[in-house]
Amino acid sequence: MEKEVFDMAGILKEQLDNPFINSLGLEVLEASVWHSKGRIPFKEDLLNPFGSMHGGVLYSLADIVSGIAAQMSGSICVTLSGSLSFLRPAIDTEYIYCEAKALRDGEHTLVYNVEISDDKGTLLDSGSFTFFKTGRAIS
Amino acid sequence: MEKEVFDMAGILKEQLDNPFINSLGLEVLEASVWHSKGRIPFKEDLLNPFGSMHGGVLYSLADIVSGIAAQMSGSICVTLSGSLSFLRPAIDTEYIYCEAKALRDGEHTLVYNVEISDDKGTLLDSGSFTFFKTGRAIS
Amino acid sequence: MEKEVFDMAGILKEQLDNPFINSLGLEVLEASVWHSKGRIPFKEDLLNPFGSMHGGVLYSLADIVSGIAAQMSGSICVTLSGSLSFLRPAIDTEYIYCEAKALRDGEHTLVYNVEISDDKGTLLDSGSFTFFKTGRAIS
Amino acid sequence: MEKEVFDMAGILKEQLDNPFINSLGLEVLEASVWHSKGRIPFKEDLLNPFGSMHGGVLYSLADIVSGIAAQMSGSICVTLSGSLSFLRPAIDTEYIYCEAKALRDGEHTLVYNVEISDDKGTLLDSGSFTFFKTGRAIS
Repeated sequence: MEKEVFDMAGILKEQLDNPFINSLGLEVLEASVWHSKGRIPFKEDLLNPFGSMHGGVLYSLADIVSGIAAQMSGSICVTLSGSLSFLRPAIDTEYIYCEAKALRDGEHTLVYNVEISDDKGTLLDSGSFTFFKTGRAIS
Repeated sequence: MEKEVFDMAGILKEQLDNPFINSLGLEVLEASVWHSKGRIPFKEDLLNPFGSMHGGVLYSLADIVSGIAAQMSGSICVTLSGSLSFLRPAIDTEYIYCEAKALRDGEHTLVYNVEISDDKGTLLDSGSFTFFKTGRAIS
Repeated sequence: MEKEVFDMAGILKEQLDNPFINSLGLEVLEASVWHSKGRIPFKEDLLNPFGSMHGGVLYSLADIVSGIAAQMSGSICVTLSGSLSFLRPAIDTEYIYCEAKALRDGEHTLVYNVEISDDKGTLLDSGSFTFFKTGRAIS
Repeated sequence: MEKEVFDMAGILKEQLDNPFINSLGLEVLEASVWHSKGRIPFKEDLLNPFGSMHGGVLYSLADIVSGIAAQMSGSICVTLSGSLSFLRPAIDTEYIYCEAKALRDGEHTLVYNVEISDDKGTLLDSGSFTFFKTGRAIS
């Protein structure tokens, strides 16, 4: 079902070649301003002390996946704010998936709904991220 | 000004000896239900592609520091939700500090205001985290 | 398309017969724990100084509609927190609609996604509300 | 302790002479970009079915008080998003107070921390509001 459709040669790829993002093992599965999707493997060094994926890792995933969508606008975008509700623990899955859908692509701001789910498609976390378009072109 | 007052022998210390938390280089500076403080070093492998501390790292810091306070209630606490507003980029500092202050310590929930700042005390990020007290004792 | 399916004799009806809720002109169109829907008329005395529906009115609508769903759990529920992103101004419509969908119906908490839209179905606002189940039965 | 320092002749006063705002009985006590304060009377027609101030009323108060501060920037500002945590019920008080403090006054956005309290100064609600500066002058 999943395929790697992301291949904006160079630009975003370079952005994503970043030590922190690499430490999460992120794979981008889809990327456009209106919809993006990514996943990270469920791995030991990303867990919280209770054995489920750390909330900070899940938030990072959501910020990065929605941020990729935002950069697809062509403008460098910065996160203004982001919130996440933790609905169910992220356990017992091979990957953790995140989808971001744009609710508004405005002149200056972009608002995304984000949903995080496991291999079975169970919704684990839900939130919202807002970006500001700096107007400077990505290059 | 800062000192390590955190020494609840074993319990929380063990929780914090976690690969993800260790990867952030977290130091706990104060810890009580009503007020906790921690810091992480500004280091290359925690930056975003623009050269400032990654938003996901800042959120992780806030989640962990407020979570430590929550666990000090004696009950295992889980994060219900957390939001963060990114006010200024975290750059040009040796450490990133986070303080969590309880706004309410209820029978079932704990609400914290979190503030992230740099070496000079400039406010970088502000947010709110809500925890649910499971009622199971920490052990 | 819309019909009044809400008729839990008495109980919630009585709750909704409240001066503030009446001042909004709320009509409940659907009500269950997992999904509720309501609408208010676009009327002059609910506008902000710029001529669109006041943000506080829209938030009230979202709080009430998701709160009705929460009460359908049979437990008296109180709002822990709620956030709303204002995407587009609410203008030029006869009614303002709000739908709440439960993302989680837990033992102690309920989390809803809320969406506010106009007559044409254009998404105007999006947010999230979290309720605590007090465990006291509604009566 | 409280005094009416708000007297930007005409402009904001006119904005505040609005049916919805009037229905809340709002009084502005302080108003500047960095800090604003207002109050509303605790009155029957603003209560929820449980006898405390309705969450939608409290949010409206927070939106208006922080919005007044935002307009003091001289630019027409629109609310991008706002969240509120309900900590304690608003009961048994003559007035409900709201203070908004700017966390950032940026070129394009303004972020406020808001706190709602009762006559005794007990913190009832806490939240955050973000505004976008349209750049159009208030007139």
